[in-house]
Amino acid sequence: MDTKVILTEKEMPTSWYNILPDLPQPLPPLLHPGTKEPTRLPPPLFPEALNEQEFSTERYIEIPEEVQEIYKLWRPTPLNRAYRLEKALDTPARIYYKYEGVSPAGSHKPNTAVAQAYYVKKEGFKRISTETGAGQWGSALAMGCMFFGLECKVYMVKVSYYQKPYRRSMMETWGAKVVPSPGEDTEIGRRILAEDPDSPGSLGIAISEAVEDAFAHDDTKYSLGSVLNHVLLHQTIAGQEAKKQLEKIDAYPDIIVGCIGGGSNFSGVFFPFVKDKIEGRRPDLQVICVEPEACPSVTKGPYTWDYGDVAGLAPIVKMYTLGHTFIPPKIHAGGLRYHGMAPIICHLHHLGLIDCRAEHQIPVFKSAVVFARAEGIIPAPEPAHAIKVVIDEALKCKQSGEKKNILLALSGHGHFDMGAYDEYFSGRLEDYEYPKEKVEEALTHLPKV
Amino acid sequence: MDTKVILTEKEMPTSWYNILPDLPQPLPPLLHPGTKEPTRLPPPLFPEALNEQEFSTERYIEIPEEVQEIYKLWRPTPLNRAYRLEKALDTPARIYYKYEGVSPAGSHKPNTAVAQAYYVKKEGFKRISTETGAGQWGSALAMGCMFFGLECKVYMVKVSYYQKPYRRSMMETWGAKVVPSPGEDTEIGRRILAEDPDSPGSLGIAISEAVEDAFAHDDTKYSLGSVLNHVLLHQTIAGQEAKKQLEKIDAYPDIIVGCIGGGSNFSGVFFPFVKDKIEGRRPDLQVICVEPEACPSVTKGPYTWDYGDVAGLAPIVKMYTLGHTFIPPKIHAGGLRYHGMAPIICHLHHLGLIDCRAEHQIPVFKSAVVFARAEGIIPAPEPAHAIKVVIDEALKCKQSGEKKNILLALSGHGHFDMGAYDEYFSGRLEDYEYPKEKVEEALTHLPKV
Repeated sequence: MDTKVILTEKEMPTSWYNILPDLPQPLPPLLHPGTKEPTRLPPPLFPEALNEQEFSTERYIEIPEEVQEIYKLWRPTPLNRAYRLEKALDTPARIYYKYEGVSPAGSHKPNTAVAQAYYVKKEGFKRISTETGAGQWGSALAMGCMFFGLECKVYMVKVSYYQKPYRRSMMETWGAKVVPSPGEDTEIGRRILAEDPDSPGSLGIAISEAVEDAFAHDDTKYSLGSVLNHVLLHQTIAGQEAKKQLEKIDAYPDIIVGCIGGGSNFSGVFFPFVKDKIEGRRPDLQVICVEPEACPSVTKGPYTWDYGDVAGLAPIVKMYTLGHTFIPPKIHAGGLRYHGMAPIICHLHHLGLIDCRAEHQIPVFKSAVVFARAEGIIPAPEPAHAIKVVIDEALKCKQSGEKKNILLALSGHGHFDMGAYDEYFSGRLEDYEYPKEKVEEALTHLPKV
Repeated sequence: MDTKVILTEKEMPTSWYNILPDLPQPLPPLLHPGTKEPTRLPPPLFPEALNEQEFSTERYIEIPEEVQEIYKLWRPTPLNRAYRLEKALDTPARIYYKYEGVSPAGSHKPNTAVAQAYYVKKEGFKRISTETGAGQWGSALAMGCMFFGLECKVYMVKVSYYQKPYRRSMMETWGAKVVPSPGEDTEIGRRILAEDPDSPGSLGIAISEAVEDAFAHDDTKYSLGSVLNHVLLHQTIAGQEAKKQLEKIDAYPDIIVGCIGGGSNFSGVFFPFVKDKIEGRRPDLQVICVEPEACPSVTKGPYTWDYGDVAGLAPIVKMYTLGHTFIPPKIHAGGLRYHGMAPIICHLHHLGLIDCRAEHQIPVFKSAVVFARAEGIIPAPEPAHAIKVVIDEALKCKQSGEKKNILLALSGHGHFDMGAYDEYFSGRLEDYEYPKEKVEEALTHLPKV
């Protein structure tokens, strides 16, 4: 076969795949953080269409034409056969990767950012507010809003705002207004600054500011970049493409590997395949989620009810959690530093349909370098976690002689993470053990349901 | 038509296009810097195959299969119709862009880096030495060497080595050894450090170090990333692809626009088209080279004999030059800060076959933002110069009502240049007038031929 499997724009899927109606058991409900009763997403924060998608029982949801047109700026994305990596590992396994780094933002995030901006615009609103840490999600949403002429206000954690100006410049290039959080634009920001004018900010504070902004402005909605069902739904464009691409070369994966932080990138890739496992066509399909040892919600956390956010204002969901007050160590894979996990991923794991592993940061970077030296692409630290497991599995095949097909969800490139590679090469990269005591403490703060 | 025109790997051109035999008049020779007699490239520095390509009269030169295999990791690259930019400008013009930013290095540079590494390896050598400023070329060559198991030693201008560590980390990720220049590894480096231990370095010094390294080691060749004929040759893969892609939609450009620093990226795109103009099939084809007002060799320099390098050690070539001792102002488009220009581009310009314009930095960034907000992709500062002219030409079409086809050579993305965008948005971006007096001074140092 060729190195890449290419789809034409006409072959691009025109619907997202909604896994909800195919789940063997229904997903536990969202609970209202106050009443603890089943609830929808707070309507002042989310457009109606996304609230519908969140609970939809339709198996396929049409991708609006306007969204398809924008996807086509960079989609369908390539699926590559990693010939050179296979050779470097001397493995009989066949390794494929679905590469989302060709989007202008360099990751999978625009798949949902563009869709969310579309629905906000369609329902007549003018602005979206959101939070961002290092800027990965903020930049994708800035781009999405730009395409539909929406204002975008990004509350960026103050320490990143000043230390990582590049993603901020990216957001500004795409027309977003970016402010350091905490800041003077919200009540909660002003309150925190009054107490501590030098507050470095946190993702929790930035979320609170963005939510307050959306509640305070009638023309504004709030947007989340992962975890929620509708976000995972929008990412399924990638997995459906990958499935078509593999069909073209008569291949089907034995193992699918991806990293999980909130869970959206990997869900997008494996949902269309795990459907075949749920329905009995591919009982042996192995889906491996990879999370950091420093923040191992699925591998180490209990499956229980917890708040989706640090402040305890978001709906309560049933998930594997390290406790919503847990602050993960500062690993470079910022996108994997979340205390919980997308409810659908947790549900599938609880049902025994998917596996999960946790990996340490230093071997993860070692694997990333092996990949970059074989395939050229320098991966972001998040999918580098998945690469570690792909290499492990390929080496197992070398031992056993099995010619397994391994599919890697390569969610983005590392162009904005070269400082982390620099730390790795200079020997300054720290590793982090599982912070057991901090997690045990955080788990004492779970909500009573 | 679709947004993108896609070629399959089977449709990828298998030869480079050599313009030399099609030139209406022969290219003036290279002259030896000492004897001033016609000369080849210094054989201790360049592999034999590249020296042959430099003067070849073969119209098509086969791309070695091993090089094709590596190209296929990211090639053929997309050709996009810029529907959204056309709409934003309200122009009847049709704008197309050939996008080289999908390579793992983010630019067109790997097209020649991979080829050069191949020939060095094939002729039995083990190492390549080169210089790099901010790291664009060094990173592409690091990747090229990696694919063929060659050692790569990059002499990186010291001030960039410490101030711009990201490209350095990229080179290290691909296995290159990167040292700050001047450094202790060469005689010239030690001499300069003895005189000034705090020397910030310069591209001239780095070239001297890399050349000394290659001369000093029997197993080592030296490599250049632009200007020379064989480098331009390797870039023609892009233009041949673009031509095929436009043929698929029955289109032919009226205007082709690209930026020129050393000249390789744009040559690669327009050579296969200008052939049609030379041969009378497309007499009206307009080719517009764009250079920075701060370093306008073709628009302001004389067409005369000058050294290719600052130190006066390289062969003397006939070109438009601002004088080899001229140090251009510090515009962000580092790739366009060269005192001269590829001899073939100069020759074609002298023969009246192509045009050239110079643009100021601030309107260039303004145009880059217009492009990013329409098409998503954030361009590097170098091709942003070409975007300025594309927008000008599209607006002329709006005035005249002409439906011209405009082809843009979009050589790379700006992910490593966001600091420049940050300066632009904060109003700190400086502009530079044409440094007339410095050029006049530099032109008093031309070699006597």
